[in-house]
Amino acid sequence: MNIVILAAGMGKRMHSRLPKVLQPIAGRPMIDHVLDASEGLSASPRVVVVGHAAENVMEHLADRSDVTFALQSPQLGTGHALRQALGQLDRNEPKTLVCLGDVPLLSRRTLEAIAREAETSDLVLLTVELDNPTGYGRILRNPAGFVRAIVEEKDASPEERRVREVNTGIMCLPTSRLDGWLSSLKAANAQGEYYLTDVIGLAADEGLRITTVHPEHAWEVEGVNSKAQLASLERVWQREQARRLLDAGVTLIDPSRIDIRGSLECGKDVEIDVNCVFEGQVRLADGVRIGANCVIRDAEIDAETEILPFCHIEGARIGMNGRIGPYSRLRPGAELIGGNHIGNFVEVKKSTVGIGTKINHLTYIGDADIGAHVNIGAGTITCNYDGVNKFRTRIGDDAFIGSGTELVAPVEVGAGATIGAGSTITKKVPEGKLTVARSRQVTIEGWHRPVKK
Amino acid sequence: MNIVILAAGMGKRMHSRLPKVLQPIAGRPMIDHVLDASEGLSASPRVVVVGHAAENVMEHLADRSDVTFALQSPQLGTGHALRQALGQLDRNEPKTLVCLGDVPLLSRRTLEAIAREAETSDLVLLTVELDNPTGYGRILRNPAGFVRAIVEEKDASPEERRVREVNTGIMCLPTSRLDGWLSSLKAANAQGEYYLTDVIGLAADEGLRITTVHPEHAWEVEGVNSKAQLASLERVWQREQARRLLDAGVTLIDPSRIDIRGSLECGKDVEIDVNCVFEGQVRLADGVRIGANCVIRDAEIDAETEILPFCHIEGARIGMNGRIGPYSRLRPGAELIGGNHIGNFVEVKKSTVGIGTKINHLTYIGDADIGAHVNIGAGTITCNYDGVNKFRTRIGDDAFIGSGTELVAPVEVGAGATIGAGSTITKKVPEGKLTVARSRQVTIEGWHRPVKK
Amino acid sequence: MNIVILAAGMGKRMHSRLPKVLQPIAGRPMIDHVLDASEGLSASPRVVVVGHAAENVMEHLADRSDVTFALQSPQLGTGHALRQALGQLDRNEPKTLVCLGDVPLLSRRTLEAIAREAETSDLVLLTVELDNPTGYGRILRNPAGFVRAIVEEKDASPEERRVREVNTGIMCLPTSRLDGWLSSLKAANAQGEYYLTDVIGLAADEGLRITTVHPEHAWEVEGVNSKAQLASLERVWQREQARRLLDAGVTLIDPSRIDIRGSLECGKDVEIDVNCVFEGQVRLADGVRIGANCVIRDAEIDAETEILPFCHIEGARIGMNGRIGPYSRLRPGAELIGGNHIGNFVEVKKSTVGIGTKINHLTYIGDADIGAHVNIGAGTITCNYDGVNKFRTRIGDDAFIGSGTELVAPVEVGAGATIGAGSTITKKVPEGKLTVARSRQVTIEGWHRPVKK
Repeated sequence: MNIVILAAGMGKRMHSRLPKVLQPIAGRPMIDHVLDASEGLSASPRVVVVGHAAENVMEHLADRSDVTFALQSPQLGTGHALRQALGQLDRNEPKTLVCLGDVPLLSRRTLEAIAREAETSDLVLLTVELDNPTGYGRILRNPAGFVRAIVEEKDASPEERRVREVNTGIMCLPTSRLDGWLSSLKAANAQGEYYLTDVIGLAADEGLRITTVHPEHAWEVEGVNSKAQLASLERVWQREQARRLLDAGVTLIDPSRIDIRGSLECGKDVEIDVNCVFEGQVRLADGVRIGANCVIRDAEIDAETEILPFCHIEGARIGMNGRIGPYSRLRPGAELIGGNHIGNFVEVKKSTVGIGTKINHLTYIGDADIGAHVNIGAGTITCNYDGVNKFRTRIGDDAFIGSGTELVAPVEVGAGATIGAGSTITKKVPEGKLTVARSRQVTIEGWHRPVKK
Repeated sequence: MNIVILAAGMGKRMHSRLPKVLQPIAGRPMIDHVLDASEGLSASPRVVVVGHAAENVMEHLADRSDVTFALQSPQLGTGHALRQALGQLDRNEPKTLVCLGDVPLLSRRTLEAIAREAETSDLVLLTVELDNPTGYGRILRNPAGFVRAIVEEKDASPEERRVREVNTGIMCLPTSRLDGWLSSLKAANAQGEYYLTDVIGLAADEGLRITTVHPEHAWEVEGVNSKAQLASLERVWQREQARRLLDAGVTLIDPSRIDIRGSLECGKDVEIDVNCVFEGQVRLADGVRIGANCVIRDAEIDAETEILPFCHIEGARIGMNGRIGPYSRLRPGAELIGGNHIGNFVEVKKSTVGIGTKINHLTYIGDADIGAHVNIGAGTITCNYDGVNKFRTRIGDDAFIGSGTELVAPVEVGAGATIGAGSTITKKVPEGKLTVARSRQVTIEGWHRPVKK
Repeated sequence: MNIVILAAGMGKRMHSRLPKVLQPIAGRPMIDHVLDASEGLSASPRVVVVGHAAENVMEHLADRSDVTFALQSPQLGTGHALRQALGQLDRNEPKTLVCLGDVPLLSRRTLEAIAREAETSDLVLLTVELDNPTGYGRILRNPAGFVRAIVEEKDASPEERRVREVNTGIMCLPTSRLDGWLSSLKAANAQGEYYLTDVIGLAADEGLRITTVHPEHAWEVEGVNSKAQLASLERVWQREQARRLLDAGVTLIDPSRIDIRGSLECGKDVEIDVNCVFEGQVRLADGVRIGANCVIRDAEIDAETEILPFCHIEGARIGMNGRIGPYSRLRPGAELIGGNHIGNFVEVKKSTVGIGTKINHLTYIGDADIGAHVNIGAGTITCNYDGVNKFRTRIGDDAFIGSGTELVAPVEVGAGATIGAGSTITKKVPEGKLTVARSRQVTIEGWHRPVKK
């Protein structure tokens, strides 16, 4: 089966500089959803018909090795679009499936159903029954039950308008007939466009067997022409993600207030509170609890760890039995080995944090290797940047870093060392001893408080 | 056209100390919505009929020069209310429009439609068709199609109850008839009130031409008598704001999770993630992205700037290509010139921040003028307050402020100066040189860790 | 009246290690909701029939003195379950009410209605009318209007299927008949289970008077067999909480975005912005305003205090006229006496904060007693922990703590004392004087900035 994806449209009603098929659903361009659903269904490269902002679309898809491009310029309708792809089709494939780049949620399961149906049918049309079919082309059938025509709303008789089965524009055609059909299409309409839909009439005239397949869900075939439709499909997609998690046993406190942009894998007895956002690849192991209002991207969180509200976690790994937050920010390269407490207003990036180590308050840890069972006091800062270079801080097991300490990297703190509060540490701290860098406390006599100026 | 706004009601079911018309929708009292929608539609001052908590309402509206007040005390119904306004009407205006202070979302467009209709009609009634009209007064028409009566639910015949067009209480009356009609109203009902609605019968008896206008949306005429209704209209209003933004091309990740209380102006390709709140006047230029869970009030954000999650921005201006957050708090008077990175747990108030300057972690900047390309280390604090006075801190271009620095204002840091980490700076820092205020690091021999008491 | 609660089910579709009746709604196990609703309705201890994970359920309920347990093992249906409870029933109680541990939202009011009905009826069945009764057992009545049978979907005639009144499984039975009925139940079904429902037929055969009671809301009788149903009932419960608050006069900006897990008591003119979570016992006095995205647990907040967005408050008391947040974290034992400003990135735990005292930025206060009208500068840290012990910090009235100060506990700051910015305080600070612990500021000649390596 050849696969052609029509992706040349401008999407004028989106009011955007971005071409329509690059508008995102769940954080990814619509065209990516279509390509992912159809991945591997064709032995030949899939043909993406580009047009408006063609360079942008092609650049976005440059890494996909199983995609080729056909340029449609100017854009004169869907029939005209498919015609541009003809040169790239594998003529040995008996069938050619036409998908739409702005119908992003068509499922792989529905595509597979079309492919199966196409094995025994001349032409397969994806159709859907709508409660309110107004505005859509109605499916008319002959007495044998095969499709004989699609009639547009404006041309339909009152009886035809009562038909609730409508065309989706997605179809699987006999490859060998495409040249003939597409070259005979007429642009006899107000827009002066060549409509792919018109091939149905041609096929019926030839007596071909035209059958239909329905998608599992009607929303699979909804197209996007405006930001309102984009937002609406975004919600459909998110509702589906929530349903999938619930079915797998995840506890969601509010299924309508979770956003998943990418993949979220959950173990047993995972609980996710309201208003969380997951991006990229996130894995939550058994018993993980995520508090309200967390944003988590590309992270792995091990069993029984609790993330308290208002955390922002990105590119981090968190070991078992941790307690993170509220208001913790873990940045790329944060590796917490296990049993860690990371507290409020604490930022950790490109650092390993050993077993049982606690960083509870108002701290910046960057480019550090911290051992096990270390206690990092409130207001500790690793001074990892001299304005041009970054340096690492190393802290041994069981060290105790007093509050308000600056560790000027590169610097090393020995195992079991204690640093007195308020110290600025610039040299190696020997293990097992107390080190301070602190001024004498003096009281000034005869001093008077400032007065209001 | 005279305009009278009835605003004397108590709103007992609101269970509030605040009078009903001062209860807010989208952050502003309901009466303000009504006054804004009708602004400029009358050449004469609009008359607000006050009663319950009259002083509060009058005080709230004191700055509106085109509003006068009539006092209704006691409050004996809508007819009685309008009667109190008679003395303030311009008798040269042929028509008088009566609006309701607790019907806050009536649109200007609908008011204009009433005004247009009133040019050729004796009396214009705003009516609406409801799927379920139970409880409302039904509109009865004569064979010519003009309104002949309004019949209350309890007095309606079964056939009359099937009428789905109902009265809204908003109407435009002939000014010259008001004295006569209002003085002939009877309070022959359980509440002992004089109902304005009864003038319809009087007008019909006189053979006047009574026509109707419908609002564009049924929710425009919903009144508020309880907190539940207030919350319901709040959601209607917010849904409308979201729709307006989507139509203009803004990407909203969840249109049901955005709150706009004031005006939000957006350029092209603006993206707003879930659960954001906008208050006052906010302007987002082209390509601005707002992360999840941000609260933004009275702010201007220039092109291509990204606001990460959990930011709280108020009274600030942010230049182009900035990256703000997560967890940044920008307070009134924060002016970021452009290309700025403001990071987590950073607060900036009454300060200018030059081009390319970065303040990435755990910092308080208050009353400061910071030049271009400055790097402010983690844990920096401008000590701007001596308990009674506030002082400014000035930092020249290209300065590097080491982490954990206190800058005791008034103080100046020269261009290109470097301050060592952990310094408390109390005197001018010369440009281009390294300045430190730091104690010697010493290790104490023979010290032992404290033991559990 | 005896009360038996069936709680032996496994809840396989929950995909959880937790037994079904311990799955939470509004933060509390379902069984707790059932026990709370039926609290005090029986003079005898209520009997909870446990089975799957019996130990866990019994352990969870161990503190409830008015509950006894019966073990059902293996679990052979509801009739079999009730049979296990027979030994624990008080035979002097004429009636026995059977509730279901996985039907968590049955209201006390409905239980009371059943109890009242049971005074004059032989057997009371809780039934409900559904728009779509598909799948449920239909209620059949005799000409006198009494229930004569319950017919299951699969056994129902077309006419019987049109009955919209269905069985809920909750019923109140004559205690004296239970032995006989339950021992005569047959397990003649695919599951091989003994169904309690079958006693209805036996009772009807005996000519008993079987009457029905409806719950006030249909959702009261919804059962939970999956995480999707759990989430759905969670939303029902939350919507009810919101409705209750609105009816009491609380302003909710979005009733569908508030979560209450426990009890939330509100005074007059309380306003709660979007996306807040309340847990445990929370009391908000008159005029309290809660900003967007706050998480508040077990807290008392006095009149006219404003909580700004992004606060996390737990186990704290906040006095009148406070202004807290944004991003304040108050932890257990935080007691703010009144008129306090707690600002961004400030954490307070186990500390009292006197009248009018302000802690505005980036501060950690733990184990401290702070007097009235104290000003705590930005970046202040109470160093309360030496690695093994915690110590208190005492600060007298009117003290001024300069920014970037570490207070090494145990330590005392006298009334009216001033501490210079950047000081590490280890000894008592005398009252009324300026104390500093600070190094001399020096500028290094001939120093050059680092270069990129």
